[in-house]
Amino acid sequence: MKGIVLVSGGMDSLVTAAIADQECDEIYFLHVNYGQSTLDKELNCFYKLEKHYQPKDTLIADIDYLGQIGGSSLTDSSMEITDHDSSEGIPSSYVPFRNANFLSIAASWAEVIKAERIYIGAVEEDSSGYPDCRQSFFQAFEKAINLGTKDTTVIKICTPVIKMNKAEIIRKGLELKAPLQHSWSCYRREDKACGTCDSCVLRINAFKKAGIPDPIPYAINIDWQK
Amino acid sequence: MKGIVLVSGGMDSLVTAAIADQECDEIYFLHVNYGQSTLDKELNCFYKLEKHYQPKDTLIADIDYLGQIGGSSLTDSSMEITDHDSSEGIPSSYVPFRNANFLSIAASWAEVIKAERIYIGAVEEDSSGYPDCRQSFFQAFEKAINLGTKDTTVIKICTPVIKMNKAEIIRKGLELKAPLQHSWSCYRREDKACGTCDSCVLRINAFKKAGIPDPIPYAINIDWQK
Repeated sequence: MKGIVLVSGGMDSLVTAAIADQECDEIYFLHVNYGQSTLDKELNCFYKLEKHYQPKDTLIADIDYLGQIGGSSLTDSSMEITDHDSSEGIPSSYVPFRNANFLSIAASWAEVIKAERIYIGAVEEDSSGYPDCRQSFFQAFEKAINLGTKDTTVIKICTPVIKMNKAEIIRKGLELKAPLQHSWSCYRREDKACGTCDSCVLRINAFKKAGIPDPIPYAINIDWQK
Repeated sequence: MKGIVLVSGGMDSLVTAAIADQECDEIYFLHVNYGQSTLDKELNCFYKLEKHYQPKDTLIADIDYLGQIGGSSLTDSSMEITDHDSSEGIPSSYVPFRNANFLSIAASWAEVIKAERIYIGAVEEDSSGYPDCRQSFFQAFEKAINLGTKDTTVIKICTPVIKMNKAEIIRKGLELKAPLQHSWSCYRREDKACGTCDSCVLRINAFKKAGIPDPIPYAINIDWQK
């Protein structure tokens, strides 16, 4: 069975790739450059993960339009990437309907190479509250894929980490020997993780909860025992 | 009410734009360059339609990946664009899951500009049998949009010509004074329409049925009375 994995370079998609690697006979990696602020670093991590997992084939899709559309601090340089805020609500880093754009690319590719599965490392709980990370969205999108492609094309969207919290994802990654040192989560910096943006704070707390230090460098001192 | 119209430069999307122009307070035009063989001509038509309808704003999205993915004679130069074949089945010009990619772009933009409608000129009957032109697909995709965007975002996919045949679309276009001379359907050529590809044959037959000659130039002689 062939599976396409959406690999961003982040931790959730890395662990998803590790799971797909176990479940599929052949894996294919899809990476999307969409004008995100840490594009180069993510692509760099992607290449390391590609080298590690040796997928059968790789597609790097360059899309500029999410930057043209804006509406997110990740793609619009005029918007500030704010510090983590534990209050409810959708953060400014939400990229409008991003996952649908990624899944559409994956489904187009899947139909051509006859892949039966698309893996995406979305996390519903313990995440940032992005609406395109909800299980109900993926179910609806899977239905749309199967109605909008050839009748002989049957594709399943797999979200193996969607119900996990970040600490469980880290433990799963360790169990599967996923190279966590080659993942990047920071929204702000590419040399060292800032340690204070939404994505960094979620990652740091998760490593603390999992009881191990994060192998990537941070710009601030972090006490991993706390 | 704001509406985004997917404007390809073809006849169906032109008439859809004419309908949206009547139904919405503000229209927005989205054009996608996806490596299709007649990209320049389509873009040229798009600019003429933009000039004609004066949308509030325009987004031209450049995506290369459908060409990288291939699987269609429209995006893969190694595949031949075949003559029209009236037998059943999905023709080689089918671009895998293309409309989902377009609708995802439109939905991302719609969420940012707070447009409530996305218009797409898909035709279910009397068309080429593309699976991503079926009503059931659009219903499923609309559901996916509303589950995968903010709860305050409510978007309707409008397919006003989906049940029309091509002759009815032409009559509707004439009724709304749509500039049909600025639309292009040929898959093969950009100077004169070839008159023999799938898209040309459907268009020619429709103008004959509507009882008027097509205003665009053809590379072959056509008897419009026949």
